[in-house]
Amino acid sequence: MSITLDPWGYAAIEDYEKLLEEFGIKPVKDMISLYSLDHHFFARNVIFGHRDFDTWLEKLKAKDNVAVLTGFMPSGSPHLGTAMVYEELKYFQQKGAYVKIAIADAEAYAVRREDRGDLIKRGVEFIAHAIAWGVNPEKAEFYFQTNMTSSYYRLIQMFSRKVTEAEMRAIYGDVSPAKIMAALTQAADILHLQLEEYGGFKYVLVPVGIDQDPHLRLTRDIADRFENELGLKRPSSIYHKLLRGLDGNKMSKSRPEYAIHLDDPIELAEKKLMNALTGGRATAEEQRKLGGEPLKCMIFELYMYHLVRDDNELRDIYSECVNGKILCGECKRRAISKLRELMITHSENYNEVINQVEKYVKKPSF
Amino acid sequence: MSITLDPWGYAAIEDYEKLLEEFGIKPVKDMISLYSLDHHFFARNVIFGHRDFDTWLEKLKAKDNVAVLTGFMPSGSPHLGTAMVYEELKYFQQKGAYVKIAIADAEAYAVRREDRGDLIKRGVEFIAHAIAWGVNPEKAEFYFQTNMTSSYYRLIQMFSRKVTEAEMRAIYGDVSPAKIMAALTQAADILHLQLEEYGGFKYVLVPVGIDQDPHLRLTRDIADRFENELGLKRPSSIYHKLLRGLDGNKMSKSRPEYAIHLDDPIELAEKKLMNALTGGRATAEEQRKLGGEPLKCMIFELYMYHLVRDDNELRDIYSECVNGKILCGECKRRAISKLRELMITHSENYNEVINQVEKYVKKPSF
Repeated sequence: MSITLDPWGYAAIEDYEKLLEEFGIKPVKDMISLYSLDHHFFARNVIFGHRDFDTWLEKLKAKDNVAVLTGFMPSGSPHLGTAMVYEELKYFQQKGAYVKIAIADAEAYAVRREDRGDLIKRGVEFIAHAIAWGVNPEKAEFYFQTNMTSSYYRLIQMFSRKVTEAEMRAIYGDVSPAKIMAALTQAADILHLQLEEYGGFKYVLVPVGIDQDPHLRLTRDIADRFENELGLKRPSSIYHKLLRGLDGNKMSKSRPEYAIHLDDPIELAEKKLMNALTGGRATAEEQRKLGGEPLKCMIFELYMYHLVRDDNELRDIYSECVNGKILCGECKRRAISKLRELMITHSENYNEVINQVEKYVKKPSF
Repeated sequence: MSITLDPWGYAAIEDYEKLLEEFGIKPVKDMISLYSLDHHFFARNVIFGHRDFDTWLEKLKAKDNVAVLTGFMPSGSPHLGTAMVYEELKYFQQKGAYVKIAIADAEAYAVRREDRGDLIKRGVEFIAHAIAWGVNPEKAEFYFQTNMTSSYYRLIQMFSRKVTEAEMRAIYGDVSPAKIMAALTQAADILHLQLEEYGGFKYVLVPVGIDQDPHLRLTRDIADRFENELGLKRPSSIYHKLLRGLDGNKMSKSRPEYAIHLDDPIELAEKKLMNALTGGRATAEEQRKLGGEPLKCMIFELYMYHLVRDDNELRDIYSECVNGKILCGECKRRAISKLRELMITHSENYNEVINQVEKYVKKPSF
């Protein structure tokens, strides 16, 4: 059997294309060569959609004021899905963008009902992991939502005036005070970088998983409503596919055995990977005959997203699999070896960073 | 006809007593001699009810940390109703309490949809009027809600977690984002004074018109819910009756001709007063025979609240009226003379203060 499927196409692509149509998100494909987007997330269609990314890239090219902003909910510990955002931040930072990272401690406290002490500790860890992954702390800024200055909060309060109950209900399903605060706070995270008080107007790009688009839609509407009053402009955004759990389902905190966390002991990570869902056939014989199904395989997904940077190597792995030249056990051992390397490096970096991280972020006092 | 009615009793007292029963507000009467409350608002039952005022007075007596906090919505300009709060602040300040005054600019912007520039200007004017009325700016602190530091906003965000949609709907009738923000911001106004970041725990008294009690009830519930986590305690509060408009109805911005504003030109104020509803009879003859009805008279209400401080003088006026010895025209001229004196003094003070007030409060930057 020869290669007929484009491994860059990805199994669940139909679902994502539906999203493009339904919400007016544009495909990113056309822009890859136009703007020399040389990250494998683009080439492999992991980052598959955007809003106004072209505007932002033009400003980046013109060395205008551009920034990348993202937020992390300091809940649990970062996993390989979180690392996709770290990877994007690192990439745009290298391209010359200023990076700002929010720790969504206000939201975690209010919506997820986490203990304040725990989530402040975790917020610091999320930052240390970002730096360990390669985000340059000298060219980035980190903050806790609850530690911001008054101009930021003034935005939240102003935004509350131009958002209706019906709108909140349509986007979030409920209008509890906690949800409303969280939503308006996210909008302030994204838009505060345009204020004079925070260094003057910047074109802001928000790289997120596609599940976060509702927040972006609300934020764009808010920006429109405050364009005259505050000079706010719509943010740009790019959307990546969600790295699935090792069982092939959406990752979930209630099934930690199917997600590889950056702070997992290496043996645990290996064990999780050995139990991953693959695209293997019922028997070895059958697999040698029919070949495996890499697009159904969580190991292949890990190769695509994180473990194999070289496109030729990825193509070879794909080919070996669909031609039945390699079985799942061997392939998993190969993946484990790559994962081990990645995690050992990361862990070494992390241990170096964690004791210095507090010089890069002020912890909230309560 | 002899005096049988107690002028301190006040016409609408039945309504207020219903409030006492329904909401568990306690009458303030019993405490007047116990704590030597020597302001005519107490003696005349204008301040008629309270929650935990006794606790606060004990702390005041013990020279423990006590504070009085109130907020002004910088909408329109202050009138003689607003001045009741100024009067209370001045009184408790003289008794040794620390005074803090919030300008509710966030709320005015979000709920009343006022222009930001206008309301910042008006906020400054509300403060100048407070100082002109006698609040000592050296022993008080003034702030705009949108100008606070992060600990205050952290409270708002934390509060959002422990307030439900149903609860907000029950208290405020709607759950628009603006209303929710405004309600939680008011709670932070009242409770932030207990935080380490704002000088450490203080017993807080909130003097308000009775219509503000729903906010106090919510704030007390919030304090209970954060007692363990943040060490918050319920605020104390005292309630005054609402000074009615000169037509006998609740004051309203849509009928400015029935409210005397502190910045009214004196001729306008006089004209408004001449048109006030009185307790006069149909004819002069009838009034001489039956006497007037001071408890139905807005001029008498002004005497009670603001224009006559001396109890004997007030009693004489009452007596003259009910005995038909004075008619409304003459009585109004007497009131005008007193009002003129009050307003000229206030206006002189105000003109002195307005140019210096910005040294006592930082204006928001947008």
